[in-house]
Amino acid sequence: MKNEGIQPTTTMEKIVTLAKRRGFIFPNSEIYGGLNSCWDYGPLGVELKNNVKRAWWKRMVQGREDMVGLDAGILMHPRVWEASGHVEGFTDPLVDCKSCKQRFRADHITGEKCPECGGELTEPRKFNLMFRTHLGPVEEAAATVYLRPETAQGIFVNFLNILNSTRKKIPFGVAQIGKAFRNEITPGNFIFRTREFEQMEIEYFVQPGTDEKIFEDWLEERFNWYVNLGVDPERLRIREHTPDELAHYAKKCCDIEYLFPMGWSELEGIANRTDFDLRRHSESSGVRMDYFHQETGERFFPYVIEPSAGVDRATLCFLLDAYHEEPDKDEIRVVLRFHPELAPIKVTVLPLSRKEPLVAMAREIRSELARHWMPAYDDAKSIGRRYRRQDEIGTPYCVTVDFESLEDQAVTIRDRDSMEQIRVPVAELVPVLREKLGF
Amino acid sequence: MKNEGIQPTTTMEKIVTLAKRRGFIFPNSEIYGGLNSCWDYGPLGVELKNNVKRAWWKRMVQGREDMVGLDAGILMHPRVWEASGHVEGFTDPLVDCKSCKQRFRADHITGEKCPECGGELTEPRKFNLMFRTHLGPVEEAAATVYLRPETAQGIFVNFLNILNSTRKKIPFGVAQIGKAFRNEITPGNFIFRTREFEQMEIEYFVQPGTDEKIFEDWLEERFNWYVNLGVDPERLRIREHTPDELAHYAKKCCDIEYLFPMGWSELEGIANRTDFDLRRHSESSGVRMDYFHQETGERFFPYVIEPSAGVDRATLCFLLDAYHEEPDKDEIRVVLRFHPELAPIKVTVLPLSRKEPLVAMAREIRSELARHWMPAYDDAKSIGRRYRRQDEIGTPYCVTVDFESLEDQAVTIRDRDSMEQIRVPVAELVPVLREKLGF
Repeated sequence: MKNEGIQPTTTMEKIVTLAKRRGFIFPNSEIYGGLNSCWDYGPLGVELKNNVKRAWWKRMVQGREDMVGLDAGILMHPRVWEASGHVEGFTDPLVDCKSCKQRFRADHITGEKCPECGGELTEPRKFNLMFRTHLGPVEEAAATVYLRPETAQGIFVNFLNILNSTRKKIPFGVAQIGKAFRNEITPGNFIFRTREFEQMEIEYFVQPGTDEKIFEDWLEERFNWYVNLGVDPERLRIREHTPDELAHYAKKCCDIEYLFPMGWSELEGIANRTDFDLRRHSESSGVRMDYFHQETGERFFPYVIEPSAGVDRATLCFLLDAYHEEPDKDEIRVVLRFHPELAPIKVTVLPLSRKEPLVAMAREIRSELARHWMPAYDDAKSIGRRYRRQDEIGTPYCVTVDFESLEDQAVTIRDRDSMEQIRVPVAELVPVLREKLGF
Repeated sequence: MKNEGIQPTTTMEKIVTLAKRRGFIFPNSEIYGGLNSCWDYGPLGVELKNNVKRAWWKRMVQGREDMVGLDAGILMHPRVWEASGHVEGFTDPLVDCKSCKQRFRADHITGEKCPECGGELTEPRKFNLMFRTHLGPVEEAAATVYLRPETAQGIFVNFLNILNSTRKKIPFGVAQIGKAFRNEITPGNFIFRTREFEQMEIEYFVQPGTDEKIFEDWLEERFNWYVNLGVDPERLRIREHTPDELAHYAKKCCDIEYLFPMGWSELEGIANRTDFDLRRHSESSGVRMDYFHQETGERFFPYVIEPSAGVDRATLCFLLDAYHEEPDKDEIRVVLRFHPELAPIKVTVLPLSRKEPLVAMAREIRSELARHWMPAYDDAKSIGRRYRRQDEIGTPYCVTVDFESLEDQAVTIRDRDSMEQIRVPVAELVPVLREKLGF
């Protein structure tokens, strides 16, 4: 069996510690004791996360003639969530303990007694996972709006505007990246499940009858996206939802799972949403949202294939899968083997000393590199220590400026993975790095 | 006097219409009648807005050794907003009409009677502009959180984590792009003032005493950012806040204003926030947030220079300033003269006919271009019409594939601004376009 014997790359504790120490991810509002399961992306984390989003956009939008992008609001008309079924159905069942007053998800409780104090539990009640707030100065029911619990609906309600402005013909898709909010009862596992999170969603509109084949195409495309960006395919698997797991609108759904430290968990879901959403919004708004097929003269509601990925989960997956420990004399060398496209820093300039004119030369090289890629500059402590620091944040290349550089106008490029070093004229640095990085 | 006699490039109506028709900006939730002053970015709008954000990040973070990035949560601990003064002071004064029940901003009313019905008005009451919601399943006061009304505080509360992980020394700055929310009583003017909006903020930490000089440097740097990305400097001006306009924490503030269709309005504010925020968070959290200066051995709270820009306003400014109408025989040629870095589509491939093998060749060229830039493909109607369509969305270059291309393996590049055409071998298309685009 595939994946047998495979282990997570490391523990969550090690990644959380590294992430904070090196500036990938900080606990949110830490000076005030933190905000439960909220996290902030630090200087390296924001670069990594932005690179994940760009890599997705580049392949899913820029690289495909059949895709366009969208960026709808987090706030939408409340009727959107009535039509989509979220107001009625996006709920978790909760029970309260009558004696200690704690609250639990009913489906996480075995037995009829409180798992904390053994007290009696109430009957389960529905708790809606959408965050509510009020628009405008008057706090009344009429002004209640929700923070979107998924970006998908922004695409459906804009379907006609997108069709009219782009003149796209099915099959075509709309891609969107943005924040969504779910008032989860039990968030956790670092940035895996948080109440505020970011999605990368595609709604791909197809002719009914072609949906099953296109579903399989997308499943393969999305699986390969992770692999092509460096994730070990042994730590990825596909799991099809059983009929009782399927959402009410879905004909089929498959999760791409990754072997996180807490076990196999969903990285991305690919769902066949049928024509549920367009049909519901059409009925609910009274606006015709069916599609007119010019060649056949037919009118129909397209089916929708939805590859829905989490930005934070993908970032965590890339961070975990890049993590390697290697023996290094008496120590351990930690290397993040990021794909060059994802690495927060592409190249770091290391002057051998803090003396002029070496520093001026190194700074000028850094400036030149910054025109093309995100660079860094490090002049603290020994070169060996500095290489290790760059390995630990996954910088693919270091450029060392030494005393000879002043004479021969050449520098040393050191490769993160092979640790090999080559001497390159400064004038050729950009083309050589472009060749090595691949962009 | 500078700026005298200068006019806005066009009217808001023309831009709103063009933006919807071509897929830059759609009314949010339009099929449900829209959500007051909320807008969604369409296929071209999301590209334009992302390019604005990237151009800012590239120059403000990637290009400067003294800057790092951050991406903090929209949700933060409620004590952040107590310490910052927002819970107490981030308010507008409201009055109600006792007879028609309408609500107005007190500072927008002249006289003591209702401007709608002439009825009697209540005394002004404070209305807090922060959106409130509840974290977790229990709606109680203890779980009240706010949607951040500015991204800045995310930087201040992470000050120590950023210092510790990056080992930066002052002067240095932290840059952040992200959504913020203000429950404005009177939003409006298209995407100029919306309740959900996006900020690009820098908090630049300096030694007290150096703040006035560095303030002027940032004012110049930020003014030039707009000019270097193509905004006519005649439509930009700097306006210093009068003492009674200054926020309570600010020592000085200057707005960079743009001549929008509704008149000169704030594009970006540059403020000297002094040590107000770090000092308040230090006192409020009990965590020492003063800075230790290694060379002098001093401890002090750095002063903060804050260039705070609006993504949506900047996008609107670039869209407006790019707008040109030119006579074209009996018609009017509309051209968006975007800077190449901001143009949503960098190059569009136009096959002269829909016949093979011309289409296959054109599609292959599009694919190759997509590895480097955002391309488009258009095969509908005459070449002249297609050029005009690309002019109207600001595409800098069109590549025309004609019947001769099949024989000489060359294509025509047409320049949006000069309308000149040159013949280029397909093999040289990428380097020639890279030279022309500048990246």
